[in-house]
Amino acid sequence: MPLFTGVVPPVVTPLNADYSIDFPSFTRTLENLLDGGVHGLFVLGSTSEVVFHDEAERKAIIEHAVKVNNGRVPIFVGVIDPTTDRVINHSKIAKAAGADAIVVTAPFYARTSQPEIIDHFRYIKDAIDIPIIAYDIPVCVHIKLERKTTVTLAREGIVAGLKDSSGDDGNLRYVLRDMAGDANFFGMTGSEIMVDTALAMGAHGVVPGIANVDPHGYVKMWNLMQAGKHAEARVEQERLLKLFEIVWIALGRTSAGSAGVGSFKTAMRSLGIITTNRMARPQRDLNAEETAKVDAILRDVGLLG
Amino acid sequence: MPLFTGVVPPVVTPLNADYSIDFPSFTRTLENLLDGGVHGLFVLGSTSEVVFHDEAERKAIIEHAVKVNNGRVPIFVGVIDPTTDRVINHSKIAKAAGADAIVVTAPFYARTSQPEIIDHFRYIKDAIDIPIIAYDIPVCVHIKLERKTTVTLAREGIVAGLKDSSGDDGNLRYVLRDMAGDANFFGMTGSEIMVDTALAMGAHGVVPGIANVDPHGYVKMWNLMQAGKHAEARVEQERLLKLFEIVWIALGRTSAGSAGVGSFKTAMRSLGIITTNRMARPQRDLNAEETAKVDAILRDVGLLG
Amino acid sequence: MPLFTGVVPPVVTPLNADYSIDFPSFTRTLENLLDGGVHGLFVLGSTSEVVFHDEAERKAIIEHAVKVNNGRVPIFVGVIDPTTDRVINHSKIAKAAGADAIVVTAPFYARTSQPEIIDHFRYIKDAIDIPIIAYDIPVCVHIKLERKTTVTLAREGIVAGLKDSSGDDGNLRYVLRDMAGDANFFGMTGSEIMVDTALAMGAHGVVPGIANVDPHGYVKMWNLMQAGKHAEARVEQERLLKLFEIVWIALGRTSAGSAGVGSFKTAMRSLGIITTNRMARPQRDLNAEETAKVDAILRDVGLLG
Amino acid sequence: MPLFTGVVPPVVTPLNADYSIDFPSFTRTLENLLDGGVHGLFVLGSTSEVVFHDEAERKAIIEHAVKVNNGRVPIFVGVIDPTTDRVINHSKIAKAAGADAIVVTAPFYARTSQPEIIDHFRYIKDAIDIPIIAYDIPVCVHIKLERKTTVTLAREGIVAGLKDSSGDDGNLRYVLRDMAGDANFFGMTGSEIMVDTALAMGAHGVVPGIANVDPHGYVKMWNLMQAGKHAEARVEQERLLKLFEIVWIALGRTSAGSAGVGSFKTAMRSLGIITTNRMARPQRDLNAEETAKVDAILRDVGLLG
Repeated sequence: MPLFTGVVPPVVTPLNADYSIDFPSFTRTLENLLDGGVHGLFVLGSTSEVVFHDEAERKAIIEHAVKVNNGRVPIFVGVIDPTTDRVINHSKIAKAAGADAIVVTAPFYARTSQPEIIDHFRYIKDAIDIPIIAYDIPVCVHIKLERKTTVTLAREGIVAGLKDSSGDDGNLRYVLRDMAGDANFFGMTGSEIMVDTALAMGAHGVVPGIANVDPHGYVKMWNLMQAGKHAEARVEQERLLKLFEIVWIALGRTSAGSAGVGSFKTAMRSLGIITTNRMARPQRDLNAEETAKVDAILRDVGLLG
Repeated sequence: MPLFTGVVPPVVTPLNADYSIDFPSFTRTLENLLDGGVHGLFVLGSTSEVVFHDEAERKAIIEHAVKVNNGRVPIFVGVIDPTTDRVINHSKIAKAAGADAIVVTAPFYARTSQPEIIDHFRYIKDAIDIPIIAYDIPVCVHIKLERKTTVTLAREGIVAGLKDSSGDDGNLRYVLRDMAGDANFFGMTGSEIMVDTALAMGAHGVVPGIANVDPHGYVKMWNLMQAGKHAEARVEQERLLKLFEIVWIALGRTSAGSAGVGSFKTAMRSLGIITTNRMARPQRDLNAEETAKVDAILRDVGLLG
Repeated sequence: MPLFTGVVPPVVTPLNADYSIDFPSFTRTLENLLDGGVHGLFVLGSTSEVVFHDEAERKAIIEHAVKVNNGRVPIFVGVIDPTTDRVINHSKIAKAAGADAIVVTAPFYARTSQPEIIDHFRYIKDAIDIPIIAYDIPVCVHIKLERKTTVTLAREGIVAGLKDSSGDDGNLRYVLRDMAGDANFFGMTGSEIMVDTALAMGAHGVVPGIANVDPHGYVKMWNLMQAGKHAEARVEQERLLKLFEIVWIALGRTSAGSAGVGSFKTAMRSLGIITTNRMARPQRDLNAEETAKVDAILRDVGLLG
Repeated sequence: MPLFTGVVPPVVTPLNADYSIDFPSFTRTLENLLDGGVHGLFVLGSTSEVVFHDEAERKAIIEHAVKVNNGRVPIFVGVIDPTTDRVINHSKIAKAAGADAIVVTAPFYARTSQPEIIDHFRYIKDAIDIPIIAYDIPVCVHIKLERKTTVTLAREGIVAGLKDSSGDDGNLRYVLRDMAGDANFFGMTGSEIMVDTALAMGAHGVVPGIANVDPHGYVKMWNLMQAGKHAEARVEQERLLKLFEIVWIALGRTSAGSAGVGSFKTAMRSLGIITTNRMARPQRDLNAEETAKVDAILRDVGLLG
């Protein structure tokens, strides 16, 4: 079996109205996920607004998550910044703070090639002894981790797994097939809406942002797929498709970034998990009208009374 | 007249073989530009490999440039990182270290809208009292500073100028026309190859990376255009077009990032300005074969004997 | 049940060395598909090199397919050209020649908006009485049929179905869910590699280009999924993933267009179905070295002895 | 001197309310351009809505233009369709109808590589004896004619010139420089807003769609640049920049295609040149509110009393 499997949500970072981290809400966010039965936690992923947080905030976030989790599940930590040595610096902090694995993207802002991306991961592996998960998220870094890149890194033992947020499930399928003989590699999908299908084709887990709102749904779907109950898993996935429509409510008035994570925060506030739906600057919070639409969907899928 | 005009090259940051900053070479780089007659220096621009440098390195780079320059020309400082508050932090360091203006891009990695980008600049202006230059570089941040965004910020007095590295000279022209009545605004092109034409249409300056290799050429072209000698300026621009072909020599073997700035460093090494052509990790240095091609072009344009 | 379901391959158009249509090979191509048990035929799709054929050739292709098929399965006909009235013209020819349905893309070369695309389909529906299948293929037309566009057209009864070659299975899933209550609508995937999963999430069929090489594989997978045997269907899909690797063999030397359909023709020639692997001008045929690589894969998946 | 130089507007094709070609308006359109002093006419360019017209309409358009022009200036004819042999067919009709040169894009819908694009032009040259102008318009065909592609074709004598509607003036400049020694090659810009600068850097002409509204402006700018009066040419260009703002009035409500050519037609109607502002289906006409905004700009630039 690979190192990590199951439902590993990227954890939302709740903020106070003054943009500081709201640690009591963060505790409730983590407990809500653990109560939901998740198999791991991914802190400082894109859903956490990681690139908005500086080094000190990131350290505090990791340490708080480690403390609240208290060894219950493994913790992945995103070490996301533009270039190699800055990622290595974050990685050392993450390891010292108790991360079980780090999650690394391709360089960004800087323009690099696939061979340079491979070197990027090699340099990080050389610098620190901790499992590395490759994070394929072209919508943020604007370059794809190509199949050959991921498989090269996996076969060299540089990366232990892949978190695929590219939306290119065909490519993920080929990576899973290429690595099928290797028990040490895992591939997880970052999709919220193609989870039953990703698991059916061999993915080892799922990293769904919206599990911050409904962890039980994703854990239920995981359990159904493990039991081979594809039809029932599909029913659950389709309920979650309905929930996922919250991410488009504010789109147009604001950006995809604000509309997506902002809708998670708004729903979590309505469910009493966190105190504000504040987004890090210069992103925009969902407003009252948008909150009403989020709530309507929460009621529709049975999360709000 | 606007605050800044003329030739303001983005300064290369020379590295030692071990990736540390080579300050003696950096001194020679700065002196070579000042000897060439440039009207300003832009440190920590994309050409400086800014996103590869952490806070401490950036501080050292600014302080060194300020010391070497010793007040001869204004110094712009790039404060480039993904999000607002991190940019504000860099801005404070830059101001304290002696920057005359800061250069700010749209957020990156994070996905933001034009209104959020406008807020991004407003928050920075609120946090620090220093002239702000908007930096339009979609090839790195993957979003355009739209005409309306730039003009809104200029009219509100949030930004003092624009550095346009978008390649969209038509848009720059409209921005210049929109702001034509405002003596406090300037617009500079980041192009190396459309400089005479950009100046002819009203740009107030140029920020050419390859001026690290040949500052005299750009200063000569600036002076010719100021004197209304368009035909002679074109001759000089065409010589520089020939020089600029170095940026494609390593393309294919490596990325656009490595091939471009890497060719500047390689040429500067051949000209005795810097000691190595080392690029920050994970970028790749130009090799011996590519260096020979760079040198052939340097000879062709009269820079190498 | 919707109008059409099952495996409906886009039929390759074999050419003679002089670029004329090789009708005997075309007959064998059609018979091979029908022998394989396909549920429909899609002539003049992208795989047929439709845009390389003029009106007279297209008419001959349809008539030949109709004659060979002789009513055994329904025939979809692609009516692919840049703009509305030209599409209507092709549609009338297609209907007269015996098409059971027409397949229509968004306009191309011309730049249109989603409301104009909706009007495009409405005008075609007004002009001709035949089932219309919307064809979402942004890689060729460079605009997406958005979920709202497709669902609007489906609810108005303008389109009877969707052929989704966008690779965006999440969007297809939402369309299928939006139309779930409407027995008159069907959605098929154009993917060759995400077929079991597309069927699992509710797709009504598949339009796989590589079924020209191996129709039995796709029919087998369809039957297994109909029987709820997901694990066995996955095994078959994974065999077809291996086969599908032929499409990348010539990539780099030639374009995605030539490399993809060219590999189908090359494999079909090796299997004795067609006489040449000629591609329409200016595309390039696979060469001997590439053919050897195609053959190796054919052997690997059990198609070639 | 190259074969063709000067102002060669792409001619608008006026339509009646029923979408048929309005020949009396077309005559006035042509006479207005010729009265304005243009040096050539480009019929069936993108501005003519060429891809909306079938073979018979295209033939009628060419013949009408040839008859009205009556040898006064050279006539370029766009032969725009997706693939090689269809372009050859259009080319033969164009030549027979009296074209002085044909204008050819890269293939579209079909995905081709640069070497295949080179072959595309070679096949056309082999098939017909008439000057060929390469048309670089990635916004419609979604692939760039790379510098090396254009220069290869020019040096082989396959193409006599380039019409560059790519917006990449730096690339155009390199092509002009590469071909500087060859009197048989010309390069024209398709820009309306960077004309003085394109001419300053060596372009041999301009193909401005909005010259249908104001031919005198572009001819005046051409003459000023020929006389070396750059400053006066810039003043005229800036007046035309103001006029060009009409193309964005309807954007958002409709597509870039409808908004651009639609604004030309609307302005021409207001100026009494044509009878309707009808756009080919499924494009949308500018409405009354948008017409008022167009008229305001026409008054602002002195075209409307």
